[in-house]
Amino acid sequence: MALIVKKFGGSSVATAEKIQAVAKRVLQDTQPGDKVVVVVSAMGDTTDNLLSLAKEITAEPYIYQREIDMLLATGEQVTIALLAMAFHSLGRPAISLTGPQAGVVTNHVHTKGKIVDVTPRRVLEELDQGKIVVVAGFQGLNGLGDVTTLGRGGSDTSAVALAGALKADSCEIFTDVDGVYSADPRVVKSARRMQEITYNEMLELARLGAVVMQPRAVEMGKHFGVPIHVRSTFTQQTGTIIREVYTVEEKEFIIRGVTHDSNVAKIAVLGVPNRPGIAYSIFSALADANIDVDMIVQSIRNLETNVIDMVFTVALPDLAQTKIIVEQAARQLAAAGVLVDEAVAKVSVVGAGMFGSPGIAATMFGALSEAEVNIEVISTSEISISCLIKENQVTAAVNAIHAKFFPQ
Amino acid sequence: MALIVKKFGGSSVATAEKIQAVAKRVLQDTQPGDKVVVVVSAMGDTTDNLLSLAKEITAEPYIYQREIDMLLATGEQVTIALLAMAFHSLGRPAISLTGPQAGVVTNHVHTKGKIVDVTPRRVLEELDQGKIVVVAGFQGLNGLGDVTTLGRGGSDTSAVALAGALKADSCEIFTDVDGVYSADPRVVKSARRMQEITYNEMLELARLGAVVMQPRAVEMGKHFGVPIHVRSTFTQQTGTIIREVYTVEEKEFIIRGVTHDSNVAKIAVLGVPNRPGIAYSIFSALADANIDVDMIVQSIRNLETNVIDMVFTVALPDLAQTKIIVEQAARQLAAAGVLVDEAVAKVSVVGAGMFGSPGIAATMFGALSEAEVNIEVISTSEISISCLIKENQVTAAVNAIHAKFFPQ
Repeated sequence: MALIVKKFGGSSVATAEKIQAVAKRVLQDTQPGDKVVVVVSAMGDTTDNLLSLAKEITAEPYIYQREIDMLLATGEQVTIALLAMAFHSLGRPAISLTGPQAGVVTNHVHTKGKIVDVTPRRVLEELDQGKIVVVAGFQGLNGLGDVTTLGRGGSDTSAVALAGALKADSCEIFTDVDGVYSADPRVVKSARRMQEITYNEMLELARLGAVVMQPRAVEMGKHFGVPIHVRSTFTQQTGTIIREVYTVEEKEFIIRGVTHDSNVAKIAVLGVPNRPGIAYSIFSALADANIDVDMIVQSIRNLETNVIDMVFTVALPDLAQTKIIVEQAARQLAAAGVLVDEAVAKVSVVGAGMFGSPGIAATMFGALSEAEVNIEVISTSEISISCLIKENQVTAAVNAIHAKFFPQ
Repeated sequence: MALIVKKFGGSSVATAEKIQAVAKRVLQDTQPGDKVVVVVSAMGDTTDNLLSLAKEITAEPYIYQREIDMLLATGEQVTIALLAMAFHSLGRPAISLTGPQAGVVTNHVHTKGKIVDVTPRRVLEELDQGKIVVVAGFQGLNGLGDVTTLGRGGSDTSAVALAGALKADSCEIFTDVDGVYSADPRVVKSARRMQEITYNEMLELARLGAVVMQPRAVEMGKHFGVPIHVRSTFTQQTGTIIREVYTVEEKEFIIRGVTHDSNVAKIAVLGVPNRPGIAYSIFSALADANIDVDMIVQSIRNLETNVIDMVFTVALPDLAQTKIIVEQAARQLAAAGVLVDEAVAKVSVVGAGMFGSPGIAATMFGALSEAEVNIEVISTSEISISCLIKENQVTAAVNAIHAKFFPQ
């Protein structure tokens, strides 16, 4: 007898037929006596449709964040009612609970609420009565008694937090991929599904471009020590388990994943007279505008005149605002000019074991060199190495690196 | 400075454009400093669409009443969020509250919950902060913490109950008619809009076929002593105020309304040997089947053989079941036969002042006689007189009666 939390996303519950399929799948997968909590998102395009309706009322509905949450929270509420009916009609007692009813407590931030507590008294009571408990993901209740939503990937976070609070034996995230891969299978044909991966590796993979799981959900899993099983909605196959440390031997792979991210832009501030405070004057202005700066390199252009170049990357959607801020700073610094390059991409390798394994960086750079890929910027963390390259060389670069670390 | 509750039904909020119109209308109608609560229903066909979705899941979703309420409650929640945004975008602070948040407490009956208490603490707090409070009608919270819905006309009931609990100065029900008329204006061209009508008269009118307001909402108004102003969404005109006693002099009209109801059927059990317990044996079987019997007449057919006829009416939708039950009873009673007539209608006059005003019945019967309308059955209550007639004579009958009591 196990307590299992299962989460199905919006595309898995997009139609009445798919909701029935989810109910059947859950019943197939569970043993008699299992206690089952199913967390679901809004059906398919529901959220987009609700937002369109709001835009008919006012051009910028997102200003009214509390009301946006009131509106969007209806999406999951529809799914839970329908899925509970589907279980009932298959002969299995079930009950739907909204996020607030399930005891998901958030801070006061609307549209991007953070879960601060989970008090699943009602969930436990209903489980004890033998019911399957169907919970609305993506939503919680704040201290004022208002519904909040958790922002992107919120349903994953709901599921993991509930699993933690319920001390669940496992938390299964059903998705359209069947696990976490050593690289994007659309780019690297020989990419392999990992049996296990650590929370920290998963967080780093997500930060560096892998979009399997939202980082907030992984952090929640790490916080509660809940193993997260990422698996496919469409097959019975075991997927990838995200946990604190490996339990099986896949140790031959120090590198656990090769990622790429084309959603970046490079900014170069050229010919800046090298005085103290230059980096501060540029990056504090960007920080004030809430823009995350990623890879930073400062290089000396001319030793005699002591003039430097400053190169860094930002996410592509932040580029327009970044350009305005940086060009203003460049004028004040009497820089020679500002160059912007959108045709760049970041390739990275991630592995918790790389610290203390010298040669990882050399292997990566060697692979890129053999593939004739020029490296523009390099940055490293404790468990990753990233290189900025030309965007049109991403496929070649990722395949070359993957072939070195995951030989056939 | 007044505290006003205004209720708009589903057709008044069917589109984003109509929701904006409601917001504008509310702002036009209120004075600075007024405290305003707006109660709304689900948009247009939302409820039907949600039920269709449920029917795709299971043929008989209404079995799962708790889940039906979970599902349907989303309808009003969408409207309140959008209407609150509409107020905001017109520059007026507003906040949406679900029925549960507004303190509407119901019994444990799902899909037809009854309001047992209203604790509008949150509503008052938000009003005190100068906000327009937009409340989801049709829904409340039961003692388990589950959302319930109130059944047909539930939003009217929500509005009146909230107005009562808030000690509101008035409760305005906006609808597609501009008040309560002395007869159905589609049938009687000279029907006049009443300035005032009592709760009891309104309840009797509703019972006898006038469909302006749901009886539950009127009872709620009577219970709390809240005057209910029934008025048009489309005009600024004053409508009809439903209250305990008249405040203006419309006293010349002892009769306040002439109603008709074609949704009835006549059943005659013929030639029954007159023994004690005959009425009981027929009507207790119907009561067991939850069928309301309306007009009842027992008449002696043959004094010598002591054989009687028993005639009564039921609502048309109950006829099929009634027939089965009555035919079985008739066999047991050795009756001569059972006759059913669906082509009948009931015309009635209603007026709280008719008791103690002899001649009302005579005037009504005289009018029918002049119009050559035959009366099949007569029944009376303290504030009404009803006659069963042929269905195809309804228009003539109602006009003839109306002309006598409301002369031009």
